[in-house]
Amino acid sequence: MTATSELDDSFHVFDTTLRDGAQREGINLTVADKLAIARHLDDFGVGFIEGGWPGANPRDTEFFARAREELKLKHAVLVAFGATRRPGAKAADDPQVRALLESGAPVVTLVAKAHDRHVELALRTTLDENLEMIRDTVAHLRAEGRRVFVDCEHFFDGYRANPAYAKAVVRTAAEAGADVVVLCDTNGGMLPAQIGAVVGTVLADTGARLGIHTQDDTGCAVANTLAAVDAGATHVQCTANGYGERVGNANLFPVVAALELKYGKKVLPEGHLRETTRISHAIAEVVNLTPSTHQPYVGVSAFAHKAGLHASAIKVDPDLYQHIDPERVGNTMRMLVSDMAGRASIELKGRELGVDLGGDRALVGRVVERVKERELKGYTYEAADASFELLLRAEAQGAPLKYFEVESWRAITEDRPDGTHANEATVKLWAKGERIVATAEGNGPVNALDQALRVALEKIYPQLAKLELVDYKVRILEGASGTRSITRVLISTSDGAGEWSTVGVAENVIAASWQALEDACTYGLLRAGVEPAE
Amino acid sequence: MTATSELDDSFHVFDTTLRDGAQREGINLTVADKLAIARHLDDFGVGFIEGGWPGANPRDTEFFARAREELKLKHAVLVAFGATRRPGAKAADDPQVRALLESGAPVVTLVAKAHDRHVELALRTTLDENLEMIRDTVAHLRAEGRRVFVDCEHFFDGYRANPAYAKAVVRTAAEAGADVVVLCDTNGGMLPAQIGAVVGTVLADTGARLGIHTQDDTGCAVANTLAAVDAGATHVQCTANGYGERVGNANLFPVVAALELKYGKKVLPEGHLRETTRISHAIAEVVNLTPSTHQPYVGVSAFAHKAGLHASAIKVDPDLYQHIDPERVGNTMRMLVSDMAGRASIELKGRELGVDLGGDRALVGRVVERVKERELKGYTYEAADASFELLLRAEAQGAPLKYFEVESWRAITEDRPDGTHANEATVKLWAKGERIVATAEGNGPVNALDQALRVALEKIYPQLAKLELVDYKVRILEGASGTRSITRVLISTSDGAGEWSTVGVAENVIAASWQALEDACTYGLLRAGVEPAE
Repeated sequence: MTATSELDDSFHVFDTTLRDGAQREGINLTVADKLAIARHLDDFGVGFIEGGWPGANPRDTEFFARAREELKLKHAVLVAFGATRRPGAKAADDPQVRALLESGAPVVTLVAKAHDRHVELALRTTLDENLEMIRDTVAHLRAEGRRVFVDCEHFFDGYRANPAYAKAVVRTAAEAGADVVVLCDTNGGMLPAQIGAVVGTVLADTGARLGIHTQDDTGCAVANTLAAVDAGATHVQCTANGYGERVGNANLFPVVAALELKYGKKVLPEGHLRETTRISHAIAEVVNLTPSTHQPYVGVSAFAHKAGLHASAIKVDPDLYQHIDPERVGNTMRMLVSDMAGRASIELKGRELGVDLGGDRALVGRVVERVKERELKGYTYEAADASFELLLRAEAQGAPLKYFEVESWRAITEDRPDGTHANEATVKLWAKGERIVATAEGNGPVNALDQALRVALEKIYPQLAKLELVDYKVRILEGASGTRSITRVLISTSDGAGEWSTVGVAENVIAASWQALEDACTYGLLRAGVEPAE
Repeated sequence: MTATSELDDSFHVFDTTLRDGAQREGINLTVADKLAIARHLDDFGVGFIEGGWPGANPRDTEFFARAREELKLKHAVLVAFGATRRPGAKAADDPQVRALLESGAPVVTLVAKAHDRHVELALRTTLDENLEMIRDTVAHLRAEGRRVFVDCEHFFDGYRANPAYAKAVVRTAAEAGADVVVLCDTNGGMLPAQIGAVVGTVLADTGARLGIHTQDDTGCAVANTLAAVDAGATHVQCTANGYGERVGNANLFPVVAALELKYGKKVLPEGHLRETTRISHAIAEVVNLTPSTHQPYVGVSAFAHKAGLHASAIKVDPDLYQHIDPERVGNTMRMLVSDMAGRASIELKGRELGVDLGGDRALVGRVVERVKERELKGYTYEAADASFELLLRAEAQGAPLKYFEVESWRAITEDRPDGTHANEATVKLWAKGERIVATAEGNGPVNALDQALRVALEKIYPQLAKLELVDYKVRILEGASGTRSITRVLISTSDGAGEWSTVGVAENVIAASWQALEDACTYGLLRAGVEPAE
């Protein structure tokens, strides 16, 4: 947990994904998740990682214990979050404060009430005692050798209600030894002009070093953070991908990108900004949320240009059509029409998948043509790597990989007079010279087909017993002609050790699903190292 | 297409979902979708709806033709988008400009180049000729009786490169008769402070009425829009849910909410702000994108409070924990599930649909319960008005509306050895005392079922011959258990005179589609004034 930060302490990027970000509805982090995220944030290069509230729940206590042993942070300093002591007690005697010290974190962020009505209604104490709680707790932690930041909760609403008291909180914290006093827009209702004005006034009136913590309830969290920086704040609290309570927090990635690229401020170690896209997606994977396709800087659509664009002008000077070079944040421009882009991305993907295209220009050209032709029909390979790899191998080897030959299949869905449904599927196929006919039931026609295909193949390929269909998505690609639309199905399959995605496109959902199921089994056999039948 | 706007012209909320929003990767709107979205936007109460680029593609041309006949806008004015005339020609002779006039839209937004390098590289003309193109085109449209707004493309980048030329573009447009000159951050790279400074200077230097159009590439589109308003812009261009190219555009809903609730500016008709959440979700359904759970103001998580909150304090004063009362935008705090909110919206919807609930509190209560129970199962009524009306009538009359009684149905999809597919469906039902068995084929199982149901019913109800299925959408509601997920189907049906939407939810896509088809036919008979069979 030692950190040898090369970053200048005069400006802090402080990440609170593991504490405030974890408040997002739908996120539920294990200790292993938290350790994994901390490593990604450290790789990214933030200055501080707020790990949680030790003592408040067993998970956070365990996180700090394991962090001491396991986390070898290269850039960041680990921070424990906690509250000021209880009213009427001493900080030195408060078990919650003791847990902060026992966490071993070199920095503690203390949350303090800064809104007079919250002191009275939520803390149920006097305004003076609240100040005393701040003074006592900060001083105690400083005496124990910790660096202390103070989060002023509900600061901006509190400032509107009682500016003198809100400023007294800031002064008290700073005088007691807090290095940074963080003004928090806890309810998230502020707009940039308000944030800027209040931060400027408080800085002038108190002289304290100020930080900013914003929530995105008005859709302005990033701008609010930057407005505070413009007004003199030198510590910004953010969360990866903007995760957080309600709408979320200020998103770390656009805040850092704005500071580095628009302000010209070095806030990450040299060269780390290029990791932005990768880190954003990796953290989304850990928390098990689909990365937003439209997130600024890092979304797959963030630098995608539709065909309407003047292709000649963009070739002359791409910067006319993009606000930054996407490679600076590790993203890429996606020109969906450009043949050159197609080639480059096919070669890249081949390398990614371990299929050597050996600089074979004719082969790459054939793959590009094939992908274009299939995408025109509605296929997509961005989310179907396994189907893409099968296509790539088919072109490289001159023929598709065949473990089995389907003769025919049939799916029946029946609504019976008693209101129940029966779903039955029959598959007829050949594998290793044997003709197999299998029938299975399911809770829907696709499920029945999946079962029947697996029943048929498992006789020959027992490896398929492990396969499980883990996700299924349908999209109708043209909605203008009723049920005559084209249907695209994406299926994710797991064998316990890994997961792969396949795609099918057809006039009807059953036929599209069948294609994706067939690819899923073929890829499963390829993964298992089975030799194709001839 | 007549509009009797009660809104003050001194400030414009200008929506461009149908033009710029449609540029979003993954959105592909039909003419019917565009008409449906225009109705939702008009219900919301925006001042202007930019419908597309007539003449640029057949779909947009058809949209304006149908809009003239079918759209009865209550608040909004329809706007056609187009470009300044070609270099070296006359506006009066330019077919693209003629298409704008022929669209019949009373307002035209012209896009003009404002960045010198774009004039040279993309338009391949001189800076002077570009000004002449603007002057000529604006003057021609004005002479033809149109109101004209001019979008200055790449304005902020252009201003940085050549401020004198960028301002000359603004002056030229205003002097030629443009009512509003819109400064566009086309590449989306600006931050609020920059936007505010440039808008303020341009306003002072040109005296033109200014508008603002921002993209969200820095995550600041909403704040950038507000910064321009602070600096004197009186026309804001937005898209529903922020749909748009790359990352997206300034999101209409937080912009309007900020103007109304934070600025105290009336920009919607009285009482319409409460429709924000409903309209946002309804438009997401039309474009077939899952509504963002974390969108400011309208997301289901936007006012959701996790348990950690001091429940006693929130009961004393909920405003201590939320930046606005969520009911002001039609959303709800998710700690206290308000029965009254449900009641109010049901009564409102009943009135809208012409079903008199007669202040019957018990009936409204039953409908609320029934809707909650069905929504828990995955139904949605925001985008399925016809299914909702059938539910309402069933509760009001004590029994569902029955024109026919289904005994059973069956759908078979078969993949034959020659690679072709056969889809066949059989429906067995009773209507007016007669038992009917009908079989039909289709290009998919749902299409075959639709055909079979219509073949069966048309014998008794010839009115159904006019019905046509015009849209079909599938969504998988839980993706974690493979094909065992719940499937929701939304179907839109037309009888030539109008369109209605129905919903079905089931374990499998065929059964879900069947429910929606059955509702669609029942509603079609209700619309046709047919008396239910007993």
